[in-house]
Amino acid sequence: MIKIAILGYGTIGSGVVEVLNTNRESIAGRAGDEIEVKYILDLRDFPGDPMEDKVVHDYGIIVNDPEIQVVVEAMGGVEPAYTFVKKALLAGKSVTTSNKALVAKHGAELIAIAKEQSINFMFEASVGGGIPIIRPLNSSLTADEIQEITGILNGTTNYMLSKMTFEGLEFDDVLKDAQSRGYAEADPTADVEGYDACRKIAILTSLVCGQQVDFEEIYTEGITKITAVDICYAKAMGKVVKLLATSRKTEEGYCAMVAPFLLSQEHPLYNVNDVFNAIFVHGNVLGDAMFYGSGAGKLPTASAVVADIVDIAKHLHKNILISWSSRKMDLVDWKKAKSRFFVRAKEEKENIQKIFGSVEFIEAEGISGETGFLTEVLTEEAFEQKASGLKNILQRIRVV
Amino acid sequence: MIKIAILGYGTIGSGVVEVLNTNRESIAGRAGDEIEVKYILDLRDFPGDPMEDKVVHDYGIIVNDPEIQVVVEAMGGVEPAYTFVKKALLAGKSVTTSNKALVAKHGAELIAIAKEQSINFMFEASVGGGIPIIRPLNSSLTADEIQEITGILNGTTNYMLSKMTFEGLEFDDVLKDAQSRGYAEADPTADVEGYDACRKIAILTSLVCGQQVDFEEIYTEGITKITAVDICYAKAMGKVVKLLATSRKTEEGYCAMVAPFLLSQEHPLYNVNDVFNAIFVHGNVLGDAMFYGSGAGKLPTASAVVADIVDIAKHLHKNILISWSSRKMDLVDWKKAKSRFFVRAKEEKENIQKIFGSVEFIEAEGISGETGFLTEVLTEEAFEQKASGLKNILQRIRVV
Repeated sequence: MIKIAILGYGTIGSGVVEVLNTNRESIAGRAGDEIEVKYILDLRDFPGDPMEDKVVHDYGIIVNDPEIQVVVEAMGGVEPAYTFVKKALLAGKSVTTSNKALVAKHGAELIAIAKEQSINFMFEASVGGGIPIIRPLNSSLTADEIQEITGILNGTTNYMLSKMTFEGLEFDDVLKDAQSRGYAEADPTADVEGYDACRKIAILTSLVCGQQVDFEEIYTEGITKITAVDICYAKAMGKVVKLLATSRKTEEGYCAMVAPFLLSQEHPLYNVNDVFNAIFVHGNVLGDAMFYGSGAGKLPTASAVVADIVDIAKHLHKNILISWSSRKMDLVDWKKAKSRFFVRAKEEKENIQKIFGSVEFIEAEGISGETGFLTEVLTEEAFEQKASGLKNILQRIRVV
Repeated sequence: MIKIAILGYGTIGSGVVEVLNTNRESIAGRAGDEIEVKYILDLRDFPGDPMEDKVVHDYGIIVNDPEIQVVVEAMGGVEPAYTFVKKALLAGKSVTTSNKALVAKHGAELIAIAKEQSINFMFEASVGGGIPIIRPLNSSLTADEIQEITGILNGTTNYMLSKMTFEGLEFDDVLKDAQSRGYAEADPTADVEGYDACRKIAILTSLVCGQQVDFEEIYTEGITKITAVDICYAKAMGKVVKLLATSRKTEEGYCAMVAPFLLSQEHPLYNVNDVFNAIFVHGNVLGDAMFYGSGAGKLPTASAVVADIVDIAKHLHKNILISWSSRKMDLVDWKKAKSRFFVRAKEEKENIQKIFGSVEFIEAEGISGETGFLTEVLTEEAFEQKASGLKNILQRIRVV
């Protein structure tokens, strides 16, 4: 019997309980032992809940109980999650977390402590919800040098962009819809400004390069400026707008960015719609691969957390090596990144050609009084320099 | 230094050497030790090849060398691969293989021997080439009861069907094209008749249910009867024809099949084209997930083999549990399987409706002198019984 404690009895924490109950027998078979929830830490009480008598309010009870071998952190946010997780690891208890903010900020340190203690710190659910990506990166794609990892890592914004695409709606309307369905929070900033995706690509990039990538250094642009007119142009080009979190290994180093991109139909991420997430990986020997699934939601996320618990149960006193040191990886200046740009401007075609040279003009049905065009491949700084010569730029979206 | 031997210096064997050389440093980092090829077993000599002096013709040299800790089986076919692999495991050497025929036939026994010996028998490359699917099933999707696993598992036939779809060609022409590109063998039977995909879905189903699934019991139908006219109808319905290998858990047990299916645009496998493979998984808590990548080819397959070597290196004297016992899993009679059927027949619509009840008639541009229709959901046996009432059936394809 492996006894665990769950920190936080919200969506994920209660999902973990549900998954453990639903698939109790098969999970025990896979883990080699039964998993029992001994404590749930929460500020609230849950009278009438079947787990009512497991609820404690004092973390000391958990961290000081030698029976507890696994702590499931499902509180979210950096503090007090960081303090609690660190204490658990130092007390010789393995930890799994779904908390991207915690992992992006303190992953390297917590991994190092787990290694020292011959236990494990796992975080499959912190990126891509139920999609297995952390474990495949760490234990399956080990023969490759990963040259690119690009994901649709935020289900809320993907739902919104899909709805704008399929129904021609404006940003504000789809945001209200997403909020009414519980896909977007009352304060949607973390999703729509790309902050959530930014932390996730920081985690993936750290795993790929084996060093600490600070999320604060990743250029991040959200979807708040995407309009129905942009979507019309995208359709005219046979493309879709997706919020991508991407990192590439270039000759100068790793280059990471979160921004809306235009994708053509040939791209494996083109058809990833609604709240689904997907992660595209290019390895130098593997070539292209993609992992697709539910990027959020109670049960998919809990499925990933419980898979971590099973892996921990199979490695109770053996650390599974995760290559992510605290040595900082300096990212390449994002202004050196290259792409084509789609631009909408109130400008004469002649002037655009004079500034940008060879461009491809795009006509979209029902749109007039402006000019849409695609540039050649340019660095960000070259684009900015040229764009400063245009008087009235309405939009610019990068093209994959 | 971990010394390995490679059995067979063909496409995969030489690919493994190339991957080990290309990413030598990062692989050593991930494995925790350098990997060195000490022997290559082949009937041939390779004068002038950089690995020339590693080539041996006598397997006894390898199996009796205590320095060899890992054997890479890349010969293909059941014998002598089975005898060699079994001897290696009994001699305490871990094994990785890309050989689906070997794994489908003898997987359970070889897994059991590895467990007894506290070593590992791994076979990531046997299904889906470079796509991580065996390890994710075994160590990531452990919280779930997998209710469906459906794959495009054969790159040759997927290339052919893609080409028929995009270029309107007939089967014989795309087969010649695939052969000229080296995608199809001179004798293409194993691919086009679905035998290759059948062994792969037998392996995946065994892993999902934890018991031995005999590939001989899986109903298997190839793509040789698919015509350009079928593709026209598929287009008229907004669907594509794909060779799927599928297994589902039903109330009566597991039901598996390999056959061409019509997929609609919403299906995650709809856009998997050319030589790419993909595996769709539905778990009872995870929901839908998909794994996509290069299903064949020298380097992608070798990438998966080398990932196995790395995993073996990290678990040199510790068996990683694989739930696949030799207890036989009897599959549900495939005639109980249910789907809609697309049918082409030289028959009056009235008669079709008299026999099948409510059907949806399909018109395809430029096709006349026959009637295309979609049935309701029927079991295979109900379909056969009804279909026997039609005089001249030209085609029937199942619909997902």
